[in-house]
Amino acid sequence: MYDMHGETVHYDTETNRLMLIDQTLLPNKTEILALYQKEDMHRAIKILQVRGAPAIGVAAAIGLSVLANESKETEKEKFLAEFEANAAYLKTARPTAVNLFWAIDEMCKTLNAYRAQSVEEIKTALTEKALAMHKEDAEVCHKIGEYGAALLEDGDAVLTHCNAGRLATVKYGTALAPVYVAKEEGKNVSVYADETRPLLQGARLTAYELTEAGIQTTVLCDNMASYLMAHKKLKAVFVGCDRVAANGDTANKIGTSGVAILAKHYGVPFYVCAPFSTIDRNTPTGKEIPIEQRDGEELRSMWYRDAMIPETAETLNPAFDVTPHELITGFITEKGILQPPFAE
Amino acid sequence: MYDMHGETVHYDTETNRLMLIDQTLLPNKTEILALYQKEDMHRAIKILQVRGAPAIGVAAAIGLSVLANESKETEKEKFLAEFEANAAYLKTARPTAVNLFWAIDEMCKTLNAYRAQSVEEIKTALTEKALAMHKEDAEVCHKIGEYGAALLEDGDAVLTHCNAGRLATVKYGTALAPVYVAKEEGKNVSVYADETRPLLQGARLTAYELTEAGIQTTVLCDNMASYLMAHKKLKAVFVGCDRVAANGDTANKIGTSGVAILAKHYGVPFYVCAPFSTIDRNTPTGKEIPIEQRDGEELRSMWYRDAMIPETAETLNPAFDVTPHELITGFITEKGILQPPFAE
Repeated sequence: MYDMHGETVHYDTETNRLMLIDQTLLPNKTEILALYQKEDMHRAIKILQVRGAPAIGVAAAIGLSVLANESKETEKEKFLAEFEANAAYLKTARPTAVNLFWAIDEMCKTLNAYRAQSVEEIKTALTEKALAMHKEDAEVCHKIGEYGAALLEDGDAVLTHCNAGRLATVKYGTALAPVYVAKEEGKNVSVYADETRPLLQGARLTAYELTEAGIQTTVLCDNMASYLMAHKKLKAVFVGCDRVAANGDTANKIGTSGVAILAKHYGVPFYVCAPFSTIDRNTPTGKEIPIEQRDGEELRSMWYRDAMIPETAETLNPAFDVTPHELITGFITEKGILQPPFAE
Repeated sequence: MYDMHGETVHYDTETNRLMLIDQTLLPNKTEILALYQKEDMHRAIKILQVRGAPAIGVAAAIGLSVLANESKETEKEKFLAEFEANAAYLKTARPTAVNLFWAIDEMCKTLNAYRAQSVEEIKTALTEKALAMHKEDAEVCHKIGEYGAALLEDGDAVLTHCNAGRLATVKYGTALAPVYVAKEEGKNVSVYADETRPLLQGARLTAYELTEAGIQTTVLCDNMASYLMAHKKLKAVFVGCDRVAANGDTANKIGTSGVAILAKHYGVPFYVCAPFSTIDRNTPTGKEIPIEQRDGEELRSMWYRDAMIPETAETLNPAFDVTPHELITGFITEKGILQPPFAE
């Protein structure tokens, strides 16, 4: 199998391919995707073959570079127009995570900065930018891990929701980075992982990557978090996020706001772990963050291969929710642990 | 198919059989069980072919009567000993719901009251007692429904967790009785149903019975309840329960305490709907209620027929949790809407 160098998203510059672990097949099968066509990249983001806000951003940046290098256009204006069409197209893959838009905008800025140069020079600049964003993501996540690990002691237990681990980034993760860094520092930290219905990223991905790394992991159904907090001393809740509004309201996987309310009730600190780029100062509050509504079939029929809910019943299936800022103890970023609101 | 007369648990006195709808097969298949052997009755309760505290109680009472009538013992002392062994055996089927113990104790009291009579007279008395408990359950549930329906207006929406509907009792249900009675009174009430992992009683059973009755029903993942309360005006949360301690602490399906904390946070009234017999004044607080821990395979592998969680990860799988009384707005019983503590 292709060597991903411990990474979830990789740029194979030799073959000019966006390399991804297909996360829809985990934990039962590990398959590597090698993408070079825009429809496959769009699909990979849309159907969650790559997921997690930082990983999506890096994948889109590498994707745009791969598409630029594959381009047959030699006439500059046509090349630029094609790039911009690709950028606009990939932006439509998912609506909530700001990293997707941020990463694509960064690539567009690079394009604009090199607009006067030759097509070949622009291609080189785009490749270098994608590689730099890829490298930076790993560095940022390790930094988040260092700040978070300082909150943890040997023997602590934490709860996390969904997967904001290495599989959601290039490596290390955001919410799980503190656990990985604590381990590097010789501290044993165990993790409780909400299974995270409907797509079970906690059961399938968080438990997979943590146990692969030799970290003790217990999966619970989402509705068991209250029981867990009532019966077990948790040091903290760590979650990732898809977008943070200027006032600190935070969009993350559906269920996150509920975990925050429980944490407040039980007096457990609740931390959002995020790259600084996830903070979107153009969005004043959580109310302005669009919430993706996904297909109800995810609840209805992905069970026993039979229908689990009668045809006549309706379903509710938002993919994220907004956690009000007053429920968040702090934001662990590569710039330290921050409190909202986020001034310039 | 056998006519259950709209009931979940039925006593066929002609054939001397405990008749049950096999709830493990719903909503995809409706099969009726006709039981007359103690091992099958124990298994039916243990593996949730019959579930819901009131239904379990009535099933156990009918079961003991069926076993008594099947008895080959003509010598009274042996007959009495056999009955008591059956009673002790069925009590071991599940640990949390008080109704199981209560119903079996009621049957034992009848046995004792008729101890001086002939074996045939005792059998007749047990049959009559089981039939009376069966009838009473339906009456009690309708009463609960009347008290609860008085809280509802046309157009209201409510949230429920797990299944405390007609399938959890003989008919009408407890938590869903207010909705059924409201419908009888000409009020349209829609229901949001938590799917209720790991066994999906909300998705499989609540949605099934409500939509069968023509009531608008929306299934959501358990972790979406916070989103629901933030975005939709709910009139109330209605849940059933397995045991209420003297101070009002309430054991119910895992996840119930979390819903109560959310309801408090969002200012939604939270009602426990229960027969008065569910209040166990011998249990001072929730701390003394034993919580059933179930097999982690229910989380791990009941999905796609493939493992959903790596072998190396642990699981947490309590079947119930305890809702502290201060989170409960009231107890809707057939004696009215009560506030704890419950004095004699």
